[in-house]
Formats: sequence, structure tokens, C-alpha cells
Amino acid sequence: MNSALPKHVKLVEVGARDGLQNEKTPVATDVKIDFINRLSRCGLATIEVTSFVSPEWIPQLADAEEVYAGIDKVEGVAYPCLVPNVKGIERAIACGVREISVFTAASETFNRKNINASIAESIERFKPVVKIAAEHKMRVRGYISCVLGCPYEGPITPAQVADVVAMLDDLGCYEISLGDTIGVGTPARARNMLEAAAKRTSIDRLAVHFHNTYSQALANILACLELGVSTVDASVSGLGGCPYAKGSAGNVATEDVVYMLHGMGIETGVDFLKLLDAGDFINAKLNRTTTSRIGSIPPANRQRPERFHTA
Amino acid sequence: MNSALPKHVKLVEVGARDGLQNEKTPVATDVKIDFINRLSRCGLATIEVTSFVSPEWIPQLADAEEVYAGIDKVEGVAYPCLVPNVKGIERAIACGVREISVFTAASETFNRKNINASIAESIERFKPVVKIAAEHKMRVRGYISCVLGCPYEGPITPAQVADVVAMLDDLGCYEISLGDTIGVGTPARARNMLEAAAKRTSIDRLAVHFHNTYSQALANILACLELGVSTVDASVSGLGGCPYAKGSAGNVATEDVVYMLHGMGIETGVDFLKLLDAGDFINAKLNRTTTSRIGSIPPANRQRPERFHTA
Repeated sequence: MNSALPKHVKLVEVGARDGLQNEKTPVATDVKIDFINRLSRCGLATIEVTSFVSPEWIPQLADAEEVYAGIDKVEGVAYPCLVPNVKGIERAIACGVREISVFTAASETFNRKNINASIAESIERFKPVVKIAAEHKMRVRGYISCVLGCPYEGPITPAQVADVVAMLDDLGCYEISLGDTIGVGTPARARNMLEAAAKRTSIDRLAVHFHNTYSQALANILACLELGVSTVDASVSGLGGCPYAKGSAGNVATEDVVYMLHGMGIETGVDFLKLLDAGDFINAKLNRTTTSRIGSIPPANRQRPERFHTA
Repeated sequence: MNSALPKHVKLVEVGARDGLQNEKTPVATDVKIDFINRLSRCGLATIEVTSFVSPEWIPQLADAEEVYAGIDKVEGVAYPCLVPNVKGIERAIACGVREISVFTAASETFNRKNINASIAESIERFKPVVKIAAEHKMRVRGYISCVLGCPYEGPITPAQVADVVAMLDDLGCYEISLGDTIGVGTPARARNMLEAAAKRTSIDRLAVHFHNTYSQALANILACLELGVSTVDASVSGLGGCPYAKGSAGNVATEDVVYMLHGMGIETGVDFLKLLDAGDFINAKLNRTTTSRIGSIPPANRQRPERFHTA
């Protein structure tokens, strides 16, 4: 097992964007800023900040400009923002964003319902966005939803995912995140999908994004690490999740991933206990209970994982 | 990954014993019987029934005789019971038990606090028990607690576990269950421990028993499956757990394990949806909320995992 495992994993913290966009009551702008600043002090490599979508689509993110302007930009931390179209990237550029993400799906039906476009249409829509990004020397990440299952179409095949990976790779995405949006994946199918995706781009340009609806996220991440993936999306305290998914339990909790990785001797740069504090902060503000078992352990009893050292 | 994986996994359902022994209010005997009968109809290979310990130690299990006598004994299902000493096996024999389990720990301190004996003393105590079991052609399973960490001693080394495995193997246990009682293990340490254990007996005589305190159980099970383990302990709905563990979240939920295994194309013989129904039954009786995300999905929305098929 250990030979193929990465020595370091880059974590992409999606809680501030994916987590807070699903709150029924919009979260106050200063709370978002405070939360992101706390995440910035945890040692996370990448913190997704917000999404420059139309406020009519997602009113919870109408303060994208104020949030991006208000947060501390810590040296060495990337602060990407989602953009759906040219209008979005123009807003992002106007407030100094350095990295953007575009998003499509491996399921035609999901894509139509989520962004009102076929997969091919979504790629066409991204082309001018990516051109503008290149002119401004901004990196572009691509997201693919529903890589293992779709709430409308059911199971998705590895070939379907691989085709979309190739499209986003051709488009010029420096990284492509493979999202099991409804959390139905298990380790063998996750690996099979990843192997197909890695034939269309290099494994070090792929990230995995698992949801924990069926509690499979950590096992799936482990299976993918064994294939050499070294970028993992996660959400502190398990914030967020897909509103379209039945019984969704949301994103895998960052603290659960960090515990596993550190316990396996894989570095992330993250301060585990500070990360838990950041989760406590946002849960208190949202009057929300964590979906992470680790997060539910009282602060006084929390302990860092025992690290694995090769004999 | 797939080459080393077992094609079939034997599940040992511990919810009726390990789960119900920790309830503050003893569960009514007829409820226990009804629950076990429901489990018997799920296709589980092994259902741990109860423990023949002194009612002064664990009043919740004072009805061991009535429970064992009252349950349906389904052809092909094993119904083991825990026994701590000669008195225990005598009671078990008197009511027709066919398989017993003995229990010790890889931590001296835990063993002293749990069963008031050193590890060596516990093995001495089991010798007459195993002799009686052999005379009655009963199989004996051995449990080892705290294989990755102890609430008193901290981390436990693979060598400590391997020594206890050798003792139980010498004693004549047909199967030895390795328990991460406080749930602190991560996949690399779990594998390392299992590799050490497998040098002292054969891998097909080892079982793994993970707790989900830090949400690591499924990932740990996957790591161990990859080494060829094919017996996994679990508790429907995540019932039970160690009362000594800080913030313990209890046993890994059987439904979570079944979802992963079936999704990977590994057979268990278990009817996934019937198993969830059995969990719903006992949770309603105990006025308890499941600790399994799968179990918390409303019955109408539950779905069996998509199975992996090699291309």
C-alpha cells in the first residue's frame, strides 16, 4: 500500500463556499470573513472563498465582492472562486481574484438542472472565460459533478467521466476535481473511475471530492491515494453538500481527512486542532451541529492522531 | 487493489451483545430476542448473542440464559456468546451454546481495569475454559482490545498485539478479533498491526473490529481487506462502543460496512435493506438515534449500492 501513496497531500477547503451557499439564512459577511481568516491560519494550502454567480441564483453568495476584499490574503495560500460565465470572471477580476474554478458534470441531466446547459454547451461557455483568465494569468480549476452517480440518471460510467476530464484538460484547466456529488461511490468504483480519468490527463492534475452520504468518503479517498492522487477537497466540519441529493450528509469533513492523512504519515501542513477550532467557530455562528465525529469530541478531549512511522 | 481482496467477507454482528450491554436502562428480554431474530433473517453469518458474565458486573446481560433460549437458531448462522471464566462457560453449556468468545487486551492497564487481570493472567484463566469448550466441541473465538491505542497507555505497538495473538493462537482460538477499542487507528497503522499479527497466525484466522470514534473505521477496514482479512466485526446502526473511551462513537455500523463491501463486489450474504430495518427496530425500541449516516436516510430513499463489476 505505502509505496504508491503520496508523501504530501494538498487539501482544498471548500467549506466557506460550498458550505455556506446552502444555508437557508444567508450568513453575515463579517462572519464569512472571520471564518476564512481562521481557516487561513490553519495551514491549508487552498481555501475556496466564494462564487461569482448571479445573486438571483444563489442569494447566499451575493456578497462575493465584499468577502473577497475583506479576507486576509496569507502568503502561500490560494483563494480560488467559482465563476459560471464571463460575467462571473469579470466580477472576479474586478476585485483581484487570482484563481477561478469552472464547473460542469459527468451527467447530462444533472448539468441541465444545475447550470441549464448540456456538458458540451458548458464547455463552450467556459472557453471565453478561460481565455480571459489566461490574459490575466489566472489559474483555472475544473469541477466535474456526479462522477459516480447522478440523482436523475443513476450510475455514471468511468468512460463518461473520462470524456469530460479530456474536455476540461483541453480547455486548459490546471487541475480537475472529480466530485461524487451524491456520495454513492465505494472504493472499487472510485478507483476504476479515477484510473479512467488518469488516462486522459496526469494523475497529479486530478483531485478527488467525496461526499459522505453513505459514509464511504474516507475509504474512497484512501483508495484514490493508493493510485497516487495527492489533492483532496474537503469541508471543515462537513459543511455543505448537494441540495439535490436525497438524504445528503454533505462533504467529507476536512478534520476526518487530516486525521487519516497525518495518521498515515502523509503531510498536509494543517494544524489539526486549529482546524477543529475553526469548525467550532462557524458551527456556533450557524447554530449548527457538526457532521464530523471528530468535531463532536469536546475540545479538551481532542487529540492529534498517532503518526505512522515506517519501522 | 483488487487482486488481494477477498471475494466474500464474513460479518460478525456484535450489536446485540456489545450494543445492548452499554444501555443505561436494561433492554427487555423479549426486545432482545425480537431484535436477534430480525438479525437472523438478514443473512448474517454470525450473530453475537450475549455475554455470560456475572450480573453484578453487567446487569444489562443478566438475562443471558433467557435470551439464548428464546432466539430462533437459524440453520447456518452461528450464535456465539462471550464467557469470561469457567463459571461463564458452565452457564453457556447449560443452555446449549455452541460457540464462545474469550476476551483480553493488548494493553496491560486496560486489561487490569476491564477484567482485573494481567494479560498473562487472563490467558491462564482461559485455559480451563478452552479445555471445557474442547470437551464439548465448542469453537472458541478470542478478542483482543486496544490493538492500536489504549485510553490509559496511549499507542500500542504491533509487537504487543502480535504477542497476544500468539498466546490466543496457542490457546486454540479458531479466530482472533483485533479490536481498535478507542477508534484511534488510521489505515497505515492498522495495516502495520495486522501484518505483525498475521506473522503469528494465518490471516484467515484474524478478524478486524474497528470503532468509528474518529470516523476511520471504513478506511481501516479497506486497508485490512487489502491484506486479505475476510472477517469483519460490526454493529448494526453503530450500537454500542466502549464506555471507557472518551467521546466514543461506538462500533462501525454494519450497514456502512455492507454498503462498502457490496459496492466493491464483495459478497456478505446480507440483505442490506432488511439489515436497515433491523436497525430501525432496535433504535425505535431504545428511543435512540442511529450513528450511521445510511441508517438516518429515510426508508423510502434508501438504495442498495451500485456493485462494482470488473470490465
